Amino acid sequence: MGVIIFNAILLGMETSQPIMARAGDLILFLDTVCLAIFVVELVAKLIAYRFRFFRNGWNIFDFVIVAISLAPAAEGFSALRALRVLRVLRLISGAPSLRRVVEGLITALPGMGSVFLLMSLIFYIGAVIATKLFGADFPDWFGSLPLSAYSLFQIMTLESWSMGIVRPVMEVYPLAWMFFVPFIMVTTFAVVNLLVGLIVNSMQDAHHEEADAETGAYRDDVKDRLAVIEKQLEKLLAAQKR
Amino acid sequence: MGVIIFNAILLGMETSQPIMARAGDLILFLDTVCLAIFVVELVAKLIAYRFRFFRNGWNIFDFVIVAISLAPAAEGFSALRALRVLRVLRLISGAPSLRRVVEGLITALPGMGSVFLLMSLIFYIGAVIATKLFGADFPDWFGSLPLSAYSLFQIMTLESWSMGIVRPVMEVYPLAWMFFVPFIMVTTFAVVNLLVGLIVNSMQDAHHEEADAETGAYRDDVKDRLAVIEKQLEKLLAAQKR
Amino acid sequence: MGVIIFNAILLGMETSQPIMARAGDLILFLDTVCLAIFVVELVAKLIAYRFRFFRNGWNIFDFVIVAISLAPAAEGFSALRALRVLRVLRLISGAPSLRRVVEGLITALPGMGSVFLLMSLIFYIGAVIATKLFGADFPDWFGSLPLSAYSLFQIMTLESWSMGIVRPVMEVYPLAWMFFVPFIMVTTFAVVNLLVGLIVNSMQDAHHEEADAETGAYRDDVKDRLAVIEKQLEKLLAAQKR
Amino acid sequence: MGVIIFNAILLGMETSQPIMARAGDLILFLDTVCLAIFVVELVAKLIAYRFRFFRNGWNIFDFVIVAISLAPAAEGFSALRALRVLRVLRLISGAPSLRRVVEGLITALPGMGSVFLLMSLIFYIGAVIATKLFGADFPDWFGSLPLSAYSLFQIMTLESWSMGIVRPVMEVYPLAWMFFVPFIMVTTFAVVNLLVGLIVNSMQDAHHEEADAETGAYRDDVKDRLAVIEKQLEKLLAAQKR
Repeated sequence: MGVIIFNAILLGMETSQPIMARAGDLILFLDTVCLAIFVVELVAKLIAYRFRFFRNGWNIFDFVIVAISLAPAAEGFSALRALRVLRVLRLISGAPSLRRVVEGLITALPGMGSVFLLMSLIFYIGAVIATKLFGADFPDWFGSLPLSAYSLFQIMTLESWSMGIVRPVMEVYPLAWMFFVPFIMVTTFAVVNLLVGLIVNSMQDAHHEEADAETGAYRDDVKDRLAVIEKQLEKLLAAQKR
Repeated sequence: MGVIIFNAILLGMETSQPIMARAGDLILFLDTVCLAIFVVELVAKLIAYRFRFFRNGWNIFDFVIVAISLAPAAEGFSALRALRVLRVLRLISGAPSLRRVVEGLITALPGMGSVFLLMSLIFYIGAVIATKLFGADFPDWFGSLPLSAYSLFQIMTLESWSMGIVRPVMEVYPLAWMFFVPFIMVTTFAVVNLLVGLIVNSMQDAHHEEADAETGAYRDDVKDRLAVIEKQLEKLLAAQKR
Repeated sequence: MGVIIFNAILLGMETSQPIMARAGDLILFLDTVCLAIFVVELVAKLIAYRFRFFRNGWNIFDFVIVAISLAPAAEGFSALRALRVLRVLRLISGAPSLRRVVEGLITALPGMGSVFLLMSLIFYIGAVIATKLFGADFPDWFGSLPLSAYSLFQIMTLESWSMGIVRPVMEVYPLAWMFFVPFIMVTTFAVVNLLVGLIVNSMQDAHHEEADAETGAYRDDVKDRLAVIEKQLEKLLAAQKR
Repeated sequence: MGVIIFNAILLGMETSQPIMARAGDLILFLDTVCLAIFVVELVAKLIAYRFRFFRNGWNIFDFVIVAISLAPAAEGFSALRALRVLRVLRLISGAPSLRRVVEGLITALPGMGSVFLLMSLIFYIGAVIATKLFGADFPDWFGSLPLSAYSLFQIMTLESWSMGIVRPVMEVYPLAWMFFVPFIMVTTFAVVNLLVGLIVNSMQDAHHEEADAETGAYRDDVKDRLAVIEKQLEKLLAAQKR
């Protein structure tokens, strides 16, 4: 843990030009030391657990992150070098509380699967329509399928949708709002329903866990007592018959 | 299903100029083949089910979508041609999981009916007031009823409402905020209540379904046992009297 | 009802210049007729119910709306004339379903009272601080208390808060973010808690109404049966003693 | 209370230049009187309660606020002088209803702790990556770690994220969306989960409080009655054996 936090600070310092000018070599050296520690730790774990190592999702997570750091970064892949900071994500696999949060977020994902699929469908259809209708006149926004998809994502987040995009488009195609306003309504409604689904799901989980504890005990108690009363009454009836 | 996905990819390719330049004829031919398959499938279903065909909402949905694709698209109706991509929506009627999501979204709509009506009323009144007050000085935004309604929709989504619209308006009418700020508050509050209603409704549905299963079984059990005990007591009392 | 909707359409037509040029006199005449009908209806109700008339909130609502329409509108009060369209709001008091929605929204208000008070306090303090700190350099945004309050409201809605306001301010006062970022966080958090409160409240109301019906019946049934059993057992014991 | 509100109005008046020009001395004098009253009240409380004074969070809150007002404000610390208006916050510790709201907000904070930590981690990593990738070309937005963090905060609030920042960046780095779009999705998803957590938590609290009242009474009643019945049966059985 301490090594990860120390490494995180080092990686932050690397972004500062004046600090790098003065102590760049030291920072890079310490960074390499940290990476070496991670590699040694990972190799030790790999040797200890062998194939069972890859059964735990968090181990794979650590493995991938360290692998990215080791990738040959010198050859102009500046983007890959920037990804080295993902090493800080190892804090998540290290701290149990963060681990639980992330696991909670991930368990929420499958329930969102089909709404997500529906959204991609709407985006694909929206992008094709937007490209065909407005692509010729607004090549920067709707010139190709990916550009349209990006613009529609921006419109879905409601960022400058009207002043920035739809009003200029409407100057050429006055009926453009007939495409964009329903698009906003449908996607917003879908996102809202995603949110509602998330709330209902986690509510039910919480309800289950807790309700089963106390209510279950009470119900078992009532059932047991009623069963005892029945048996005693049967005895009474049997005694009466004699 | 496969045909729909293949057709979706074709329709996506049609938006790309370089691909169309090289293989345009092939793509258009394959597209026509796909459409022919859909038409044949639909006609076969129509013959098989006859009038019962139109009792299922999803069948009507498919019928309308294929009909749009067949509409005489050549005569300058470029908008209608763009709508051909709606064919991809047939994926929804094809995949049961997507079908369920859409049915879920649609069942949520009636509950929103009266709030929606109220919103339209607020928009209509807001549009009339805005047109009368600001129409003369800001014809682009509030020149007519539809323009005002569009601008108010933009303001409701909070997009550039202040920097883009209200601040310029306030330079001419310094008290304009007395109209716009309450408008934002009222519409936002109505939207929030829509969301709250959605959450409460789907929560209750979920609660019902599940609560009725377990609690119902327990309650029936308690009632049955109490009935048994009552009968035994009656027997005892009857025996005592003899 | 029909008269109100007809009047609403008339008021909408009045905003259109070409229609007014052709049939302005007719529309204004019909509008006056509609208003006369409302006044007659209201006076009839007033005579019928007398003082009890004012006990119903909706009656007062109708009364105020018609009174606004009758206010001397000719003398340059163009704003008041625009408010005549509020007459359309009478649709709400006329349609029971809209009435219920509005009553629902209004019953949600008291629960929001203290959070609202807290928000006003935060806004007042924020406006005083912003005016003192930035008022001299940015008179358009923070020149006076009302201007600051308006700008802070804009910032709370997240509209152009950074690009439009905070970045320019930060060019003069580099530490301005220390005021604005916490302000955004606090107000957003308060708004979110308002929403959470609304959800929890209306959930409990819904829960109560429904739970009390079925569960209450079951619980009374169990209690009654247990009481009967107790009495029968007492009789048995009494008989045994004899 | 009255003194605080009066002081709040005074502090508001101080922001207005024309009022200060006419009655500045009087207002400053009255302000000093108000401050003196607060100090006397606080000292009286300190003498009365001594060390127990600091056990109550609200007392510490009052103490800090008055201390800020007394800080040597004359020496150019205009920012600190502006903070004097925080005195108005004493209204919160004065009014019980506001106190409860703030206490409610604060109790919601610990549950958000780990999500908050996760968010800071994401922001730190995002800021390092953004600084390394885009810092050289966009020094105003991503020139240093704090600048990047601020820009990412703006992007998370969705303010001008696309038109203002990402589109210009994409003109230099066409793949920049691969960093920003996932960043928006992840942070928005985390914020949404924070909201869901808040709703579920306060729902459970509300549920507990209320459910325990009525249900608990019912359950105790059922248990008591069952105990009575059991005892009666035991007596009957004992009598039978004799």
